[in-house]
Amino acid sequence: MDNKFVYLFSEGNAEMKNLLGGKGANLAEMTNLGIPVPQGFTITTEACTKYYEDGEVISNVIVEQIMQALAKTEEITGKKFGDFNNPLLVSVRSGARASMPGMMDTILNLGLNDKTVEGVAKLTGNERFAYDSYRRFIQMFSDVAIDIEKRKFENILEEIKELKGVQYDTELDSEDLKKVVQRYKELFLKEMGKEFPQDPKEQLMDAVKAVFKSWNNPRAIVYRRLNDIPSSWGTAVNVQSMVFGNMGDNSGTGVAFTRDPATGEKIIFGEYLINAQGEDVVAGIRTPQPITKLEKELPECYREFMSIANRLEAHYKDMQDMEFTIEQGKLYFLQTRNGKRTAPAALKIAVNLVEEGVLTKEEALLKVEPKQLDTLLHPAFDADELKKAVPIAKGLPASPGAACGKVYFTAQDAKEKHEKGEKVVLVRLETSPEDIEGMVAAEGILTGRGGMTSHAAVVARGMGTCCVAGCGEIKIDEENKVFIANGVTYKEGDYISLDGSTGNVYGTAIKTVAPEITGYFGTFMAWADEIRKLKVRTNADTPRDAKQAIGFGAEGIGLCRTEHMFFDEARIPAVREMIVSENEEQRRKALAKLLPMQREDFIGIYEVMEYRPVTIRFLDPPLHEFLPTEEEDIQDLAKEMGISFEHLKSTIESLHEFNPMMGHRGCRLTVSYPEIAEMQTRAVIEAAIKVKKDKGYNIVPEIMIPLVGEVKELKYVKDIVVKTANEIIASEGIDLKYLVGTMIEIPRAALTADDIAKEAEFFSFGTNDLTQMTFGFSRDDAGKFLNSYYEKNIYESDPFQKLDQTGVGKLVEMAVKLGKSARENIKLGICGEHGGDPSSVEFCHNVGLNYVSCSPFRVPIARLAAAQAQIRNPR
Amino acid sequence: MDNKFVYLFSEGNAEMKNLLGGKGANLAEMTNLGIPVPQGFTITTEACTKYYEDGEVISNVIVEQIMQALAKTEEITGKKFGDFNNPLLVSVRSGARASMPGMMDTILNLGLNDKTVEGVAKLTGNERFAYDSYRRFIQMFSDVAIDIEKRKFENILEEIKELKGVQYDTELDSEDLKKVVQRYKELFLKEMGKEFPQDPKEQLMDAVKAVFKSWNNPRAIVYRRLNDIPSSWGTAVNVQSMVFGNMGDNSGTGVAFTRDPATGEKIIFGEYLINAQGEDVVAGIRTPQPITKLEKELPECYREFMSIANRLEAHYKDMQDMEFTIEQGKLYFLQTRNGKRTAPAALKIAVNLVEEGVLTKEEALLKVEPKQLDTLLHPAFDADELKKAVPIAKGLPASPGAACGKVYFTAQDAKEKHEKGEKVVLVRLETSPEDIEGMVAAEGILTGRGGMTSHAAVVARGMGTCCVAGCGEIKIDEENKVFIANGVTYKEGDYISLDGSTGNVYGTAIKTVAPEITGYFGTFMAWADEIRKLKVRTNADTPRDAKQAIGFGAEGIGLCRTEHMFFDEARIPAVREMIVSENEEQRRKALAKLLPMQREDFIGIYEVMEYRPVTIRFLDPPLHEFLPTEEEDIQDLAKEMGISFEHLKSTIESLHEFNPMMGHRGCRLTVSYPEIAEMQTRAVIEAAIKVKKDKGYNIVPEIMIPLVGEVKELKYVKDIVVKTANEIIASEGIDLKYLVGTMIEIPRAALTADDIAKEAEFFSFGTNDLTQMTFGFSRDDAGKFLNSYYEKNIYESDPFQKLDQTGVGKLVEMAVKLGKSARENIKLGICGEHGGDPSSVEFCHNVGLNYVSCSPFRVPIARLAAAQAQIRNPR
Repeated sequence: MDNKFVYLFSEGNAEMKNLLGGKGANLAEMTNLGIPVPQGFTITTEACTKYYEDGEVISNVIVEQIMQALAKTEEITGKKFGDFNNPLLVSVRSGARASMPGMMDTILNLGLNDKTVEGVAKLTGNERFAYDSYRRFIQMFSDVAIDIEKRKFENILEEIKELKGVQYDTELDSEDLKKVVQRYKELFLKEMGKEFPQDPKEQLMDAVKAVFKSWNNPRAIVYRRLNDIPSSWGTAVNVQSMVFGNMGDNSGTGVAFTRDPATGEKIIFGEYLINAQGEDVVAGIRTPQPITKLEKELPECYREFMSIANRLEAHYKDMQDMEFTIEQGKLYFLQTRNGKRTAPAALKIAVNLVEEGVLTKEEALLKVEPKQLDTLLHPAFDADELKKAVPIAKGLPASPGAACGKVYFTAQDAKEKHEKGEKVVLVRLETSPEDIEGMVAAEGILTGRGGMTSHAAVVARGMGTCCVAGCGEIKIDEENKVFIANGVTYKEGDYISLDGSTGNVYGTAIKTVAPEITGYFGTFMAWADEIRKLKVRTNADTPRDAKQAIGFGAEGIGLCRTEHMFFDEARIPAVREMIVSENEEQRRKALAKLLPMQREDFIGIYEVMEYRPVTIRFLDPPLHEFLPTEEEDIQDLAKEMGISFEHLKSTIESLHEFNPMMGHRGCRLTVSYPEIAEMQTRAVIEAAIKVKKDKGYNIVPEIMIPLVGEVKELKYVKDIVVKTANEIIASEGIDLKYLVGTMIEIPRAALTADDIAKEAEFFSFGTNDLTQMTFGFSRDDAGKFLNSYYEKNIYESDPFQKLDQTGVGKLVEMAVKLGKSARENIKLGICGEHGGDPSSVEFCHNVGLNYVSCSPFRVPIARLAAAQAQIRNPR
Repeated sequence: MDNKFVYLFSEGNAEMKNLLGGKGANLAEMTNLGIPVPQGFTITTEACTKYYEDGEVISNVIVEQIMQALAKTEEITGKKFGDFNNPLLVSVRSGARASMPGMMDTILNLGLNDKTVEGVAKLTGNERFAYDSYRRFIQMFSDVAIDIEKRKFENILEEIKELKGVQYDTELDSEDLKKVVQRYKELFLKEMGKEFPQDPKEQLMDAVKAVFKSWNNPRAIVYRRLNDIPSSWGTAVNVQSMVFGNMGDNSGTGVAFTRDPATGEKIIFGEYLINAQGEDVVAGIRTPQPITKLEKELPECYREFMSIANRLEAHYKDMQDMEFTIEQGKLYFLQTRNGKRTAPAALKIAVNLVEEGVLTKEEALLKVEPKQLDTLLHPAFDADELKKAVPIAKGLPASPGAACGKVYFTAQDAKEKHEKGEKVVLVRLETSPEDIEGMVAAEGILTGRGGMTSHAAVVARGMGTCCVAGCGEIKIDEENKVFIANGVTYKEGDYISLDGSTGNVYGTAIKTVAPEITGYFGTFMAWADEIRKLKVRTNADTPRDAKQAIGFGAEGIGLCRTEHMFFDEARIPAVREMIVSENEEQRRKALAKLLPMQREDFIGIYEVMEYRPVTIRFLDPPLHEFLPTEEEDIQDLAKEMGISFEHLKSTIESLHEFNPMMGHRGCRLTVSYPEIAEMQTRAVIEAAIKVKKDKGYNIVPEIMIPLVGEVKELKYVKDIVVKTANEIIASEGIDLKYLVGTMIEIPRAALTADDIAKEAEFFSFGTNDLTQMTFGFSRDDAGKFLNSYYEKNIYESDPFQKLDQTGVGKLVEMAVKLGKSARENIKLGICGEHGGDPSSVEFCHNVGLNYVSCSPFRVPIARLAAAQAQIRNPR
């Protein structure tokens, strides 16, 4: 039996979203509810998939089903395709499973031709309208379905306006528009070598094909990637008979929300225009009226509208976003859907709907997109000022929020100016750990190179600082302290503004407003915390970050990177002294200088964390990261350290690596220099003892060994840690517990996790590195080719942002199983960037991890995602 | 029940090698056979393992068992520990499961003390001998068991000789030696703060402990790594009563082989000394007699010896290496083992033993170590000249053979001088693909950096050229064209010699001799081919290599790297032109220049391979490898290419990668530039058609897509290949089959092999990269830290040489299973360096691969290893 690829609206329902798309399912649902909807049919998402499988061809089966549905639609509406007296005109719109506003194509007024245009003129009594619709249809159809450049049509329109000496389209009369139509058809003939299709059925099939095709247009691919929508879903196509809101003063059109989408307040919110079509609202020539005015103008219609709106909200149990048209006093609903809303509105609506008894807490928790919470925690631009601003460039939205300040090109300058009270934006080709102080001082960070997981991006997200990364459009000249965007030069001290949520860069100062966190946030997040099973920790290296994360609900630290502390100005000399040491004795001397500083760091963190768990990762990066690379800097450092330039240079050269990511780092450093782990253990344990004695907090430090690939490697390091720790504990005569565990970030560690669990008391999945090794590409280099991969639909999302469940996830699952088989109660967490990504959090819940850890500003996202995961898949 | 940790010789047998070690098992076996063996006991390998588990302590259980065995030994021999009249003296020797000659420690004459030394003097009638033995025992014991520096004892001996004004130890009489003993004991007291132990039992326990300890001395660790011996095996300890060959003219000692270990000839081969101890043979003061002379001197003993020797060979079915001592007319066998032999001897003995009806073919095949075949195929140094030569440095034995030639420091110089008829050795800090012509021209290659799988090592092994890599001991100054070893400067044009099998570098010319391949090789290898199930292919990029490999028995090409062809002087301009292209059109123009050259390459290879399968891997390395990095070279190239320096430089900079190993390479290049795959497909298919038409060979090219991690990636490239190939085939109107498959070298490919097998018609495991990604270290960088890993027993072998079966092997097995689940008859092979490593070949057999592929010179090794695998585990 052939599949059913086409459904009349009366044949579907809201449950069939996967097949009919969101719009189609809702049109069907409204039809079933008896709500007046212009009738039509939906071509399914499966038809779209089949279209691609068949090599971009619409198979005969589908064509036949479309023709049958069309015939029935003619029957239902009493109108006919191509009929002069009563022509059926339709809109053809895409409608995917998930809403993708503006991403795909729409064609209105399909069915118009040289004959029906006259029919419409007669029917509406408005010849100008009929010809304007026709010329728009030709233009839209040619652009969307045939791919003739829009510009060429615009040029014709301009010419005609010039000839007539007018400025606006509206100043053209029906005779002018007839000329336009004539010229358009000539253009079509010239471009395509055939006449503009007069057969509405031919028009229809071309339009359907165009919608299918638009599923893979570049902006749709990008949108899908940003919104986790698989390309395999495909789009449905809705063919709906047109109704006209411009048939006189008892006609009109409008859009409305059942609640205020900006605030969430429970009032009808929307606007309409009498005697107008949808486009006129957008065109902005006439000012639409607030929806409440309709009560006076067309009270009957208003009452019906309100009654249906309330019914729809109650039916869908959510705020609705509706489009309607009134054709000669008769109200039609063209669309309803759950309305987009701001984050504060989303929270208020969710909480209110529970209070109103409409939703359970669980249902309410599922109504809010976790990623949306992000905007609650960061500054935003003043909306009015933003409207007037035009971006000068666009980079990657690496860390959300809005920032405005004076441009500085070195960390040093940024820091100094910040200390003098200036608001600064740090602009760098790319940042390195040495820039950390400048990054802390900056309102925002802009880099010319690097991706969403570049150093700048990761650190900025950790600090909650706005960051636009990899902005290749601007040319940064660090030496001369200028950058050029669009031909304009911006110098040190000039104001710019960054939008970290869109990646936009503005060449002027735009006022920012602080985030507003309402009581609804607290209520809502408390429900999430009640329900979720997955703990949420944070990645934090400083007391400041730790404190912020606790404010956002973090329940511990899942990753405290000790190397970030090494870059501090006060300690880097000792770190460097350690690195250039020629023997253990020298190295121990240098380490002894670091010990008290590192101990102080941990004391600070423990004091903030109080009773909460803290996982501390031992030194991870390759040592050359701590040394300069430029000849001049080496010269300076040699002088500073009192060693010869040649010696220092040859040390730096000997540390050079071909692939530093796969080099001498992580626990490999400890295998070479066990004394580093001794020092770090000493700092961790002595700090815990001090805080226990001084404050009475029962700290249980979790010491995490990075980059383990083999159990003997872990055992070697663990033996050093345990010996050192136990000696200190014994000599202090105090009772202190601690754990020793490992990162699982090397594929071999996951593959041999049963062996490794014999030594490891906990696993923390380092999914950044695990992703790199499993895919075999470095996140620093992948930016160069991943775009081709997205364009060609090979990858649909950035595996560094959204955990690849097929490959990397398989390793994680394997490691969880093997780990538990060897140590039943092994503590399992994740500390890669993925710990703050909702779909990845859900995966972590499903495979049975104990916690996720993410940067402070993503903690609320993770909390909500964890609750949603528990609701969807209770454990 | 307590384990049994100690076995009398009479309690064991040859089957108990794992427990008693090779030496202990054979002593037991000889005892059982009634062969006269000085009695004693063996402390098991499990005792050694327990010693380490218990924290380097010999547990009481073991001590007790040793004391019981000692008591029984006293009973059997009628001698007693510490007894003046009839003192029991013993030797304490290590004896692991596998023979590790000279790697661990031995103590002779244990049981001597101030009292028993007098007893021995009386018993032997030779006071000088007694005291010489005593002073040697003190020295050996102090060195081995107590760790007092040998040098300090030597100094005392020198002083006494000086005092007496003599030159040789033998010129000291018993009174002198008594003084030496006195001074030795004083030294011991001073160093240790206690007297030299007089209690033989205390001596014994210290000695046993010393042997256990020596299992983990650095040279033993290195030896184990080179010989694939796991550290978990541990060593046994043999305690054997001493017999004396120096008790008069009816005493003596010797060593003998049942066949000539150099040639394999069936004649008794060995030497002996009358009235001497084992050490005297080594000392070289008296010239030993050929064993046949013994027939005249002690005919009775000779007959008995010959009878036992023949019995032992028949019993062990292999050539025996025996040690014996005659004490006052009584013959004792101290040891027997399968004798080490040269490769030609090994083959002759194996074939002869089959002809003699002693062994089956299968048994004979198991007698030869596959790695040994290597030496058959490479030149070697003239043995006499080698004896006189002293190495000036030692590097990694990267590619076997011997080479002698004049030193040149650039590929260009090496090539030019070679063309003038000089024999050259290319010396480089490290080689890059640009050096290829110089490498081809060189007799041998020496590099200062890089490991066993560095570029130099891999390429040299492929070509069968001798190579010593990573020789950090010498300082290479490429600019001034000199290198310094041990303070001596070697300039361009100086002669040096390299031993690629040991890593030794000699500062003089040493004559080399060509390899000699006998008829035994052919017979033996034919047996291997009869039995093995695993096919053996070769990695070859040129007709020359392919031809050589066929000579060595290769059955196809498993890896033909197309990029090696790109480096050719004639084509690199076109390659570079392609790389700097700014659009597809320019790129296609450059590719069109490459097409005919690449097609010619494949024609050449196909013609050599005739009917055999050829797997061609598409372009793999990152593009920047084809461009220069030095400012000056860029300048030259820009001029040559007629483009601006800035443009070229910025192109090179834009190609820079942080981790090139994980960068834009492999199929990722094709995703970006599909036209490259089009050109390569065209070359592969057109060449096959040409050879089919011209020669009638039915080539079935196997096109291999590298670095695939995701099935959609493979499908994208495969679609291009198939479309291009089918168009050509159709237009030529010829029937040509081809396969499209992929490397499995990215962990994700192994994890998702079921998906990938839906598109891939074959898998070839690229275990070099798979090892890198699975372990998370780059082979170019791992050299820096792997030594620490070996020293600390974390890794026991180089995972780039010997496949890591626990981790990487798990991925391979998983991929085999998943691959077969999706495509039952999928062709499976391996083309990493591991394809020529015997233990890895065995693994490949066991997991069910169809073939291994290795460099031409390793083909015979792989053939034998595959046969052995089939014999051990028939499939």
